[in-house]
Amino acid sequence: MSVPEIVRIGHVVLTVADLARARHFYVDLLGMNVLHEGSGGIYLRGVEDREWSLKLELGGSPRVRQFGFKVATDSTLDELERLAVDLGLPHRRETERDRPAMLRIQDPFGFPMTYYYQSVRHPWLLQRYDLHRGPGISRIDHVNLFCPTVADMGAWYQQRQGFRLTEYTEDKHGVTWAVWMHRKGNVHDLAITNGTGPRMHHFAYWLPDGNRIMQLCDILAGARAEAHIERGPGRHGISNAFYLYLRDPDGHRIELYTSDYLTVDPDFEPIRWDRDDIRRQQLWGGPAPKCWFTEGSMVESEDGGLVPTTESVLTGVPTYIS
Amino acid sequence: MSVPEIVRIGHVVLTVADLARARHFYVDLLGMNVLHEGSGGIYLRGVEDREWSLKLELGGSPRVRQFGFKVATDSTLDELERLAVDLGLPHRRETERDRPAMLRIQDPFGFPMTYYYQSVRHPWLLQRYDLHRGPGISRIDHVNLFCPTVADMGAWYQQRQGFRLTEYTEDKHGVTWAVWMHRKGNVHDLAITNGTGPRMHHFAYWLPDGNRIMQLCDILAGARAEAHIERGPGRHGISNAFYLYLRDPDGHRIELYTSDYLTVDPDFEPIRWDRDDIRRQQLWGGPAPKCWFTEGSMVESEDGGLVPTTESVLTGVPTYIS
Amino acid sequence: MSVPEIVRIGHVVLTVADLARARHFYVDLLGMNVLHEGSGGIYLRGVEDREWSLKLELGGSPRVRQFGFKVATDSTLDELERLAVDLGLPHRRETERDRPAMLRIQDPFGFPMTYYYQSVRHPWLLQRYDLHRGPGISRIDHVNLFCPTVADMGAWYQQRQGFRLTEYTEDKHGVTWAVWMHRKGNVHDLAITNGTGPRMHHFAYWLPDGNRIMQLCDILAGARAEAHIERGPGRHGISNAFYLYLRDPDGHRIELYTSDYLTVDPDFEPIRWDRDDIRRQQLWGGPAPKCWFTEGSMVESEDGGLVPTTESVLTGVPTYIS
Amino acid sequence: MSVPEIVRIGHVVLTVADLARARHFYVDLLGMNVLHEGSGGIYLRGVEDREWSLKLELGGSPRVRQFGFKVATDSTLDELERLAVDLGLPHRRETERDRPAMLRIQDPFGFPMTYYYQSVRHPWLLQRYDLHRGPGISRIDHVNLFCPTVADMGAWYQQRQGFRLTEYTEDKHGVTWAVWMHRKGNVHDLAITNGTGPRMHHFAYWLPDGNRIMQLCDILAGARAEAHIERGPGRHGISNAFYLYLRDPDGHRIELYTSDYLTVDPDFEPIRWDRDDIRRQQLWGGPAPKCWFTEGSMVESEDGGLVPTTESVLTGVPTYIS
Repeated sequence: MSVPEIVRIGHVVLTVADLARARHFYVDLLGMNVLHEGSGGIYLRGVEDREWSLKLELGGSPRVRQFGFKVATDSTLDELERLAVDLGLPHRRETERDRPAMLRIQDPFGFPMTYYYQSVRHPWLLQRYDLHRGPGISRIDHVNLFCPTVADMGAWYQQRQGFRLTEYTEDKHGVTWAVWMHRKGNVHDLAITNGTGPRMHHFAYWLPDGNRIMQLCDILAGARAEAHIERGPGRHGISNAFYLYLRDPDGHRIELYTSDYLTVDPDFEPIRWDRDDIRRQQLWGGPAPKCWFTEGSMVESEDGGLVPTTESVLTGVPTYIS
Repeated sequence: MSVPEIVRIGHVVLTVADLARARHFYVDLLGMNVLHEGSGGIYLRGVEDREWSLKLELGGSPRVRQFGFKVATDSTLDELERLAVDLGLPHRRETERDRPAMLRIQDPFGFPMTYYYQSVRHPWLLQRYDLHRGPGISRIDHVNLFCPTVADMGAWYQQRQGFRLTEYTEDKHGVTWAVWMHRKGNVHDLAITNGTGPRMHHFAYWLPDGNRIMQLCDILAGARAEAHIERGPGRHGISNAFYLYLRDPDGHRIELYTSDYLTVDPDFEPIRWDRDDIRRQQLWGGPAPKCWFTEGSMVESEDGGLVPTTESVLTGVPTYIS
Repeated sequence: MSVPEIVRIGHVVLTVADLARARHFYVDLLGMNVLHEGSGGIYLRGVEDREWSLKLELGGSPRVRQFGFKVATDSTLDELERLAVDLGLPHRRETERDRPAMLRIQDPFGFPMTYYYQSVRHPWLLQRYDLHRGPGISRIDHVNLFCPTVADMGAWYQQRQGFRLTEYTEDKHGVTWAVWMHRKGNVHDLAITNGTGPRMHHFAYWLPDGNRIMQLCDILAGARAEAHIERGPGRHGISNAFYLYLRDPDGHRIELYTSDYLTVDPDFEPIRWDRDDIRRQQLWGGPAPKCWFTEGSMVESEDGGLVPTTESVLTGVPTYIS
Repeated sequence: MSVPEIVRIGHVVLTVADLARARHFYVDLLGMNVLHEGSGGIYLRGVEDREWSLKLELGGSPRVRQFGFKVATDSTLDELERLAVDLGLPHRRETERDRPAMLRIQDPFGFPMTYYYQSVRHPWLLQRYDLHRGPGISRIDHVNLFCPTVADMGAWYQQRQGFRLTEYTEDKHGVTWAVWMHRKGNVHDLAITNGTGPRMHHFAYWLPDGNRIMQLCDILAGARAEAHIERGPGRHGISNAFYLYLRDPDGHRIELYTSDYLTVDPDFEPIRWDRDDIRRQQLWGGPAPKCWFTEGSMVESEDGGLVPTTESVLTGVPTYIS
């Protein structure tokens, strides 16, 4: 059976309680670029994005309305629709600004996934360095999701949508605690972490180097907004990324990420990390705050409500956390 | 007709007149890592490479013996062999250290291309930062070749081997002067530039950021080896890369390269540059030395000699060069 | 005889032909910070400066009206005044915005030097990283002046004003071609270079690291203002500084400068460079454009005109220039 | 009364329990440069140091044998000797490798301070970038000492040895908890922090930029030596420095430090920080580990033993620490 061809992570749609406050955080502090703006929400992108990659909408309790993935052609949407029909997954066609043909599927684990091929392409800002603001965030890189059944969800996305495993965390009993999977050729477009779910752990943007991440810390401090910094900067063992985690004004977690590696080789062998190896999360050895392991964003259900969550039977966090 | 699946650039094999001198340049100054070493030559790699990516051999006039490409499976070699038979291209099976099954094809433009899938995978050095030396060169990125028939050669690699065009240079008459084509998802694995060919213009390695490139300039200067610097550092308009060009002791040109962009979108539209736009080569506006446009490495023929070269009918270099 | 205590370079006052055009260059592109602005001119500073350090005035042919030095106390002005009287140098008391007590002396070599102690101190921007723009220029660092009698002028400033020699350029006959002298503890506050003078070769601002200098190149390129880049980026042998030279819209030359070294030791031995050592100007070996050796800004005379210049008897530029 | 002229911090002499282990840490991991080595100890320096700046000696419980300061002339030693005689401070003349004339004074607070002018000057490594190892540590920058009577000790060094205050920490009652004082023109040569003393909190080396500090974290992680990282990297509010704190194998604390600011202005006004302002220690807001506030190195007494310590009456650490 052929597998629908997913190209890469495409966007995240978040709801926020105060649009002006969220705009200040993402646009004024993080320096993201406004592509469209209106009563319906704000469409943002990095300097390398030719399409919008983050939408902020006013409304309700903060949650993720969509995780968007770009696919290879419009007919990929038909393939994905057949998959949804075959498996009895809730799904519907939708449209969005710049994106006339989208398919929304509630996946078997409760996540609201939308797929699109067509998107209006806008002139990028990459070489308009004079217009870059703040750290000059480049492009959307990945999403990381909390799920109580990591192994099942990881297998499903590998088998049904062609995601390729790059790294994973196991305990000494061989139980999978987390997986990192990609389509675009770096470490991940989609990661899944053990925990109460379905919830989003974080979404992430790429930057060209670690200096920009340091600069963002300084900018936040200069604006007396350092409380948004939740973890880092540091170097992940997993992915080798130089990272920083922030919480936005609504509690959504965003990672600034750079310096991972190429994963296109067909004989690439996924890298195994032990759950109790402190270096997997922080190569430099420092602990993460407990909230980093437990807090996340709820996701929107088929009817516009919140998808109820389930706790994982794998409880506890690594012993090394603070 | 199905097209053989090329994964990425894999290696370059160079001959040099003095192996110890070449080793000093690549290992002591550039900090590349020795994987194997013996009477037959030296096998080098970057800290992210799990396979060797550069081989230096003693012998004859300096030339390129092979440009190597990693393919998707062993059966891809069979597909490529059928292509060579169909088109009457000289070809043969070969082996190399770590690579038990390779196919060498002299392409229609005279270049010695070798293809392989299997390669012994070695533990990488990426997270052994304590072992990195010099600027910590990461991985092989691309090759750039001189050819008097750029448009034809570009079309051939796109049609026959699935390369995808990302950027190109045209003059005002619509004549193509250069093309950049990729398989691995960034700007290029293979670029072709107008000029006397077949010859290699340069091969390139990736680094994680521009600081490392500055550091390499300082290292060369510290060792009184600054004469190896031919051009840069600077920012290319084409590819947006931060770059540095060096000439090795045998005259082979190597580029240190970072900070290009993601090209996986199926609706990516190739970027056109005008031949007389100085910004295409140097976004900061400085000229290149004339030798950068005219000098290159000869390539090895089927019988171990040098492939005779042909001048391009497109003569002259842009008016802005020094 | 006691020597008046100079603390550091303090400011430069330039005239420009178009104030809006100059403001665009310094404020919009270079990201300098406006402290005061009015019909009389624009007062600028870096993020670390607590006082203004650059004033742009409309008027006449582009020239330097003042080179300003901060001194240890108000009484230092009296000492300097006695020096001017003793030597018959033209001098007068002046005031400027924020600076109620200044002394202007036309030095024996024709340069308009002003000295001040008092200056209104403004809250700095150093830790308001959210307000930094562009590369975040830090503070004024030095001025470099063309003079046909380098040895005499160097000796005068060392003997009469306590400047300390750090580096110098000699030819094989022992003739001095350039000197670098400091008061504040790094390589220089004041450098003197052989050439037609009195003229200003350049003035310079400090940045915290070389990344900012790269970023400024990108910003200029993004704004299609790359023609302002005259030389660099590169690494000077002299001073070890990472540098970039720009020409402003009126032709005044500004250097962006970082990464020199500490010179406070009383037994510091000045470093000698040979005039024909290409590494003294560019450790990486590249040539400078000829204009870099020959063009400079005129300086203002006692009566508001231009000080006539004299050619140096030391003619010719190093053989390695382009 | 004239005050002896101190130029800058010059060196630290530490005892260690295992010289090979300490050498591995400072030379192999941190990349410091060996100037002399023998049975008596190891003399190290940064690439900008022309003199040794750190000596490691085998012996006894880990302690600081000397804090060394370079002074303006040999006669400064006579002035300091008169001061010691006048105040009845234990003192003696000493010699060290490269330093034929030193004066050791046990200061009123129990610290073993040595002063020297003459030191053999060695060719520096600054522009021998090919010989730099690891992060390329530049030069010694400062020492930070625990003392139970911060206000008294700060006043003594300002009045008796001409140190200049740049920043200080007070509580809401106006009680001084810490002071930063300099001689060389940046934020400090000598800082004093409230706590059980006399003990050394840390000594610090300068690096040219924050990238090097990141690189050192990676090197430590690569060597599985990340446990040496005690705090950071981060940005201090006080001093604006980008920092990293390590504990060496004997527990001595070393800071890697860059990016503070110029303090030469005579009208510089010291910056006051509130003791409970989390931003003073970490502009980015993160807490420090408790050990950072409580642990330090003992100092050597006149007779080669350890100076007994006294607790401060100012107890407790800021409420924000972890």
